[in-house]
Amino acid sequence: MIGVAILGFGVVGSGVAEVLTINSDKITQSTSSEISLKYILDVRTFPGSPFEKLMVSDFSVIEADPEVKVVVETIGGTGVAYEFTKRALAAGKSVVTSNKELVSTRGLELLKIAFENNASYMFEASVGGGIPIIRPIKQCLTADKICEVYGILNGTTNYILTEMIKNGKAFDEALKCAQKLGYAEKNPAADVDGIDAGRKICILSSLCFGRHIYPDDIETYGIGSITTADIKYADAIKCKIKLVGRGIRNEEDKIAVYVAPHLIEEGNLLSSVEGVMNGIVVRGNAIGNVMFYGPGAGKLPTASAVSADIVDCVNKLGEPKSMPWTDGGKDVMFDSKMLVSRWYVRTPDTLDGLVRIGGDDGENAYITDAMSEYDLFDIIKGKTVSVYYRILS
Amino acid sequence: MIGVAILGFGVVGSGVAEVLTINSDKITQSTSSEISLKYILDVRTFPGSPFEKLMVSDFSVIEADPEVKVVVETIGGTGVAYEFTKRALAAGKSVVTSNKELVSTRGLELLKIAFENNASYMFEASVGGGIPIIRPIKQCLTADKICEVYGILNGTTNYILTEMIKNGKAFDEALKCAQKLGYAEKNPAADVDGIDAGRKICILSSLCFGRHIYPDDIETYGIGSITTADIKYADAIKCKIKLVGRGIRNEEDKIAVYVAPHLIEEGNLLSSVEGVMNGIVVRGNAIGNVMFYGPGAGKLPTASAVSADIVDCVNKLGEPKSMPWTDGGKDVMFDSKMLVSRWYVRTPDTLDGLVRIGGDDGENAYITDAMSEYDLFDIIKGKTVSVYYRILS
Repeated sequence: MIGVAILGFGVVGSGVAEVLTINSDKITQSTSSEISLKYILDVRTFPGSPFEKLMVSDFSVIEADPEVKVVVETIGGTGVAYEFTKRALAAGKSVVTSNKELVSTRGLELLKIAFENNASYMFEASVGGGIPIIRPIKQCLTADKICEVYGILNGTTNYILTEMIKNGKAFDEALKCAQKLGYAEKNPAADVDGIDAGRKICILSSLCFGRHIYPDDIETYGIGSITTADIKYADAIKCKIKLVGRGIRNEEDKIAVYVAPHLIEEGNLLSSVEGVMNGIVVRGNAIGNVMFYGPGAGKLPTASAVSADIVDCVNKLGEPKSMPWTDGGKDVMFDSKMLVSRWYVRTPDTLDGLVRIGGDDGENAYITDAMSEYDLFDIIKGKTVSVYYRILS
Repeated sequence: MIGVAILGFGVVGSGVAEVLTINSDKITQSTSSEISLKYILDVRTFPGSPFEKLMVSDFSVIEADPEVKVVVETIGGTGVAYEFTKRALAAGKSVVTSNKELVSTRGLELLKIAFENNASYMFEASVGGGIPIIRPIKQCLTADKICEVYGILNGTTNYILTEMIKNGKAFDEALKCAQKLGYAEKNPAADVDGIDAGRKICILSSLCFGRHIYPDDIETYGIGSITTADIKYADAIKCKIKLVGRGIRNEEDKIAVYVAPHLIEEGNLLSSVEGVMNGIVVRGNAIGNVMFYGPGAGKLPTASAVSADIVDCVNKLGEPKSMPWTDGGKDVMFDSKMLVSRWYVRTPDTLDGLVRIGGDDGENAYITDAMSEYDLFDIIKGKTVSVYYRILS
């Protein structure tokens, strides 16, 4: 019998308890040993919950129990989540998490502790909610050199943009709608400003390119400047505006990573990813482009990914581990402004030599040929520019 | 050193040799042991090929070489491919294949021989070309009960339909185009009649539902009856016509599997899968719907999937194996005609009580409410019906 403990009985934590219960027969089939949920750690009490008897408030109980081989961290943040993860791994227990903030900022350190203690640190649910993406990159694209990974990584902003595109809502109105439906927090900054997507593209880039990429080292732009006019001009050239996180490796093995709104052409399937769904494209030198699509959040989808990681941990108990990536930071990165693409520009000024695709209320919308961001700076030098976004084909 | 032999130096076989060569550093990183391509079996000779020295024409050489631990079968068909696979597995060698015909018809038998000899029989490349789909279903959806799997599994027919939809071509013209581009064979029956898609949905269904589903036991319809009028009527109700393979499990754990053209509503991302691309949707009780998308064929994408399987085989040498599915056949299946959906009907007759969505040249197009195929039969009894297709939302 393999004991499992869940830290944090919030949305994801309670979802994991539910999936382990309702799908216990399927999970038993998939593992060599029986899995038993033994503890749930939370500072709150849950009288009447079917899991009431499993509740503990002291992590030391879990840490000291040799039957607990897998710890599920669904606390979030980098406070106690970080401390408990370190202690669990140091005690030789495998840790499974959906905590993208912790993985993107402290992942390398925690992977090292896991490696030294022959334990696993797994985080399938930290990117794309339920969508299988971490394991396919690790295990299915083993024969490919991955050149690029990009995608729609945040359901909240994609919901807002979809409302703007499909129902003509303004940003503020669409945001209120998302808040009413529970898709956006009261303080929506982490989603709207691209911070959540930034953490996720850092994790994906670390995995695809083998070096830790830190959120502090990447440029991150949100969707707050996108207007209904932008949506309309994009539509005129058969594009949809999406918030995209993107990681790319150049021929010198340097990596550029950033988050920003993009105009995506209709021929790219990512442009059809709507509402709270996520879509992630991986480009390899043999496979070409593949895309993974599904619910990027939600109780049961995320719990499904966490539970699959639990099964994997159990099946790998005692096996030798490997590090998915090594140290990284600024020295392995190149400037994303060097990346060449076509650009969309909205400006109250007149720009000569560019293709004008529309204009209204004293503003003009243009598109450029393919060029780096620095070349674009030369073109718009001395002009007032409202927004400019890359165009992705 | 782990020796690998490739059987059949055609498009996929030569692609595998190429991927093992160009990505050898990445592959070496991913495996515990060095992989070395030792033999290539073909009846033809390839003077001047960089792999000329590896060529052999006698399978016994490979069979008898204890250094060869992994055999790649890219011969195709169920003749020598079947014989050599059996002999390799019986000799304790793992076998990797892209041969959907062999896996769908003889997979259970070959998996048993593999299991008995503690070898792997892997076939990621048999469905969806390079798209990671077999391994994600096996390893990422371990905590989900899979209820349904469906998708666009044949690039040739999807290319033909895309030409009809986007460029208004008639079926014959689109087929000729596909043949000219090398997407369709001179005798296109296996693609156009849905046989290839049938083999693939049988493999996916076997894997998702745990029982072997045989191509002979499923109903298979092709795209030959689809006219430009159907495309137009579908467009009027915001649908795209696609050839879909579909497997579904009911509450009594019985399975229905079939291949047929469907009208797919625009809100379903599968409707946006165009050209030779494939898209596969998996529905689980926790995860909801996820989709895997990418190139469904092609030399390097398929070789990428085969090579990932080689890596996996090497990493699992000596480990205990498990059977992905058990015996199946007609007794585990239910009649797909019982499945309820809305329907599209094109007929020279008049059907009362249905919603008419268009008509031309003496024909009418209707859609129905949700009902089984038997209920539809009651409605069209005594009438002349040109075609009827399910509508998928």
